[in-house]
Amino acid sequence: MSEISRFAVPKREDLPHDMAERIAQVEEKSGFVPNIFLTLAHRPDEWRAFFGYHDALMDKETPALRKADRELIVVATSAESHCLYCVVAHGAIARIRARNPRIADQVATDWRKAELDERQRAILEFAVRLSVEPWTVTPEQLDALRGHGLSDDDIWDVGSIVAFFAMSNRLVHLAGTMPNDEFYLMGRAPRGEAPRA
Amino acid sequence: MSEISRFAVPKREDLPHDMAERIAQVEEKSGFVPNIFLTLAHRPDEWRAFFGYHDALMDKETPALRKADRELIVVATSAESHCLYCVVAHGAIARIRARNPRIADQVATDWRKAELDERQRAILEFAVRLSVEPWTVTPEQLDALRGHGLSDDDIWDVGSIVAFFAMSNRLVHLAGTMPNDEFYLMGRAPRGEAPRA
Amino acid sequence: MSEISRFAVPKREDLPHDMAERIAQVEEKSGFVPNIFLTLAHRPDEWRAFFGYHDALMDKETPALRKADRELIVVATSAESHCLYCVVAHGAIARIRARNPRIADQVATDWRKAELDERQRAILEFAVRLSVEPWTVTPEQLDALRGHGLSDDDIWDVGSIVAFFAMSNRLVHLAGTMPNDEFYLMGRAPRGEAPRA
Amino acid sequence: MSEISRFAVPKREDLPHDMAERIAQVEEKSGFVPNIFLTLAHRPDEWRAFFGYHDALMDKETPALRKADRELIVVATSAESHCLYCVVAHGAIARIRARNPRIADQVATDWRKAELDERQRAILEFAVRLSVEPWTVTPEQLDALRGHGLSDDDIWDVGSIVAFFAMSNRLVHLAGTMPNDEFYLMGRAPRGEAPRA
Amino acid sequence: MSEISRFAVPKREDLPHDMAERIAQVEEKSGFVPNIFLTLAHRPDEWRAFFGYHDALMDKETPALRKADRELIVVATSAESHCLYCVVAHGAIARIRARNPRIADQVATDWRKAELDERQRAILEFAVRLSVEPWTVTPEQLDALRGHGLSDDDIWDVGSIVAFFAMSNRLVHLAGTMPNDEFYLMGRAPRGEAPRA
Amino acid sequence: MSEISRFAVPKREDLPHDMAERIAQVEEKSGFVPNIFLTLAHRPDEWRAFFGYHDALMDKETPALRKADRELIVVATSAESHCLYCVVAHGAIARIRARNPRIADQVATDWRKAELDERQRAILEFAVRLSVEPWTVTPEQLDALRGHGLSDDDIWDVGSIVAFFAMSNRLVHLAGTMPNDEFYLMGRAPRGEAPRA
Repeated sequence: MSEISRFAVPKREDLPHDMAERIAQVEEKSGFVPNIFLTLAHRPDEWRAFFGYHDALMDKETPALRKADRELIVVATSAESHCLYCVVAHGAIARIRARNPRIADQVATDWRKAELDERQRAILEFAVRLSVEPWTVTPEQLDALRGHGLSDDDIWDVGSIVAFFAMSNRLVHLAGTMPNDEFYLMGRAPRGEAPRA
Repeated sequence: MSEISRFAVPKREDLPHDMAERIAQVEEKSGFVPNIFLTLAHRPDEWRAFFGYHDALMDKETPALRKADRELIVVATSAESHCLYCVVAHGAIARIRARNPRIADQVATDWRKAELDERQRAILEFAVRLSVEPWTVTPEQLDALRGHGLSDDDIWDVGSIVAFFAMSNRLVHLAGTMPNDEFYLMGRAPRGEAPRA
Repeated sequence: MSEISRFAVPKREDLPHDMAERIAQVEEKSGFVPNIFLTLAHRPDEWRAFFGYHDALMDKETPALRKADRELIVVATSAESHCLYCVVAHGAIARIRARNPRIADQVATDWRKAELDERQRAILEFAVRLSVEPWTVTPEQLDALRGHGLSDDDIWDVGSIVAFFAMSNRLVHLAGTMPNDEFYLMGRAPRGEAPRA
Repeated sequence: MSEISRFAVPKREDLPHDMAERIAQVEEKSGFVPNIFLTLAHRPDEWRAFFGYHDALMDKETPALRKADRELIVVATSAESHCLYCVVAHGAIARIRARNPRIADQVATDWRKAELDERQRAILEFAVRLSVEPWTVTPEQLDALRGHGLSDDDIWDVGSIVAFFAMSNRLVHLAGTMPNDEFYLMGRAPRGEAPRA
Repeated sequence: MSEISRFAVPKREDLPHDMAERIAQVEEKSGFVPNIFLTLAHRPDEWRAFFGYHDALMDKETPALRKADRELIVVATSAESHCLYCVVAHGAIARIRARNPRIADQVATDWRKAELDERQRAILEFAVRLSVEPWTVTPEQLDALRGHGLSDDDIWDVGSIVAFFAMSNRLVHLAGTMPNDEFYLMGRAPRGEAPRA
Repeated sequence: MSEISRFAVPKREDLPHDMAERIAQVEEKSGFVPNIFLTLAHRPDEWRAFFGYHDALMDKETPALRKADRELIVVATSAESHCLYCVVAHGAIARIRARNPRIADQVATDWRKAELDERQRAILEFAVRLSVEPWTVTPEQLDALRGHGLSDDDIWDVGSIVAFFAMSNRLVHLAGTMPNDEFYLMGRAPRGEAPRA
């Protein structure tokens, strides 16, 4: 079985120009091409929608929802879905964004005991609930996040990141995509650099 | 609480042209604007990615994965997430596509006993598994779908529809979006017409 | 497989007089014989106990527990058991009793977001708990219902309806009984008439 | 809190004649009145339906479904619902019927390892499934019971006992009924006598 | 299958002296050798660690954590794991320690309704939580136990008994060990004597 | 809150000689003292039983159950219990024993997709089952492990490791013990050295 997909993986030279270009940028920045870029590549329209959605949610930083927080939402909810690719790849980015080499392993196994502040813990509690039993989300829980300083835009982002990765987890399980070897060690030493994914 | 969202809902006259146009087309065809088009409208980039992804998966028909089958995947998996909007809206479309006024209620409550053929039952069994416990999906289960005549492209579509609506279900629960009243009765009489959603 | 049962279904002309008479009354009132009357008919003593129990609980109306409320308890708890017959048949009656064509679909999929008042929501919350994890019911939860105006007789009725349909759901799953086609559309148009079931 | 009920318990002298008579018979035979006879007594019609149904299913013996087997179905499924009254009261009767002082405790805690033959184990496996996740019951599982010598009437009885005690468990949890002290020790010594319940 | 183990069971005459002596003491006191002493005997080092750990936790009595309370923790948590040996053997000891012939059956089936005081109920609630979903234990829950008079040493004992029997339950399920017949009746009559186990 | 325990942690100079010596050996070999050695130190008898049991199971290697396999059993089952200390500490040892820097993260998140051979996958499937729903273990499952070359002694070890860490996971959750920082990075570079734990 391929490490990338149980489905067709197109050759890079056959990809549409916009996709090839984005992939080349990621490779230049990270030093490798994260497998998910190739897993989805046999479907260009879906690929474009997927990464367009991703970037709209993840390449953003607000005072109450930092880039590191966004990555930790991915790690916590993907761990509940046992999504190896998502936990390892976004765990790497989370370590770098948070400048904390332990935080991803902690959040993946037991976010309740991780080195988080109260705001972060409230965000992850809400995120895991929306991911695992979304029908139990109430307006009062949104208010609780507001009490931790999140704006409505931040709360929308929290929920949308959860939702987007509920999709992503299932695509990865469908395809059987494995994490690139490079992700496992990233951000574990004092200095590192995050891939764009 | 608004029927449409717990978050900001922009006025239609303030929407970007491409979004306004698409919404006008839907309204003309269906006679109303499904709420989800407005729930997501405060975030144009996400709106475009969402509907681009949706259309790539749902506006398609192959011999082993008819439009009706695609809608039934949405109904079965959204019922597991208790997503009222998705069950009612896509249930309406499923009734019309399948020309069967009972099928959506059956699949929403107990797909195992619904009026389905063996191929459809195998699709829904796989879909519900991928939605609810995606980590248990195996290559052998993909082979089982091939045994029912699905191509690799069909299987990718099944899985991607499941994944896309895992996202959609959670966005709807986040926003608290209710189904439009019109959906409840659509497709229940001998003749009806489906909205584009 | 028969739509009515995996077990013997006696001919109507062979039924004991009291059963035949009751079935004829239902048929006259509703225009058809709900399948459950025939599913259980091969066991006259059980049939009599079943419908005697049913009528004692369902053909009753108090200020804090209307007939419509009783039907919604059936819909909410039967949905948790994926009981297609019960959801569709009692959903039909609930629509008629409540004069609301949307309420049954809402309660079946997500009673938390249905068009209910606070009293109704408290009743359904208690009912679903008693149905799904009855060992967690406490005297304090009974007090909470009293706080919504329910008498002890009303609370007994709520609990007994839950209990009776826990039985009914399992009998239907045992027999594989399907809902009559007539139920699906009942009560969806402005005017309708409920069957006695 | 009363040992009998959180709801009204009528005085025995105020009971309708048929109920008083049946209760007197039980008392004469067993030496005490099992609490369930009083828990339900405030509702004579329901009381009559309940015990009519009970007797139709439990006071019966066939070669492939003995009285002891019927009681063990009650014990196994009531244990899953944590129904103390049902486990203790029907455990007592099961010990007597099966002339085995260990069997009830075994079935209540782990029917898989209890001193049962293959037919009994198949019955309990089916019964627990119908009780806990009834929507997963299939015609093939009914065939498996036929393979152990059960007739269709026996299978109906198995399923109906499961269904009836799904109701009974929930009524007991609603009322908070405790087992009479006498049940705990019954059938544990070599010779004992079962109450009629 | 042996009643004692699916694995090798050494002869008593072949056991190391310290093990043989301890087993002889238990036999003298109880009148029989509880099977678990033989199940583990093929591994002397593990046997010694197991019973050393057991005695350190169970042969102790403090004002807020009596020997009977310790046995009831074993019964409640072992029932959640469907561990027949542990429920029956420690249920016997619990009846004797508590001088209550009903308490073990009550705690095994539904500790919420058992004849317990508030302190005992709080202990069992914590114990079951630590046994079934240990990741949800919080410092606030430890404080709640302190509020019932438990010292830190008592709380450690509660948690360690839960932990030790989480191990014990799984060893018993691995080996398929059945309870000795003697346990079933112990402590059910007014006077009895507990085995050392 | 201390990183080591919510309970008393004795000073190293106050420890009994045998415990102090063992801890000094671990420190010399690993370069630090794993927190679990101190978490349990306030109870010397339990400490001795715990580490005696641990060493009897983990410091052993057979052809069909290597030291690395033993550590992976700990990682897989501790991940199900969300035990951060166990996953991180034994994940570190597993990486070193297996000479594979990715294996622990894989097994912790989704052992089904980890880089394992068929024997290892069968071991982990059995181990997770025994850990999470031990009552479903059957003699046939033991035979399946024999089919992968495991001896009865190996199977006993598999099951005992599962059981021992079911205990260990709960002790760690009770105490709130965090992993030492050193564990996170161990075994991730090509060469490393395992601590004795």
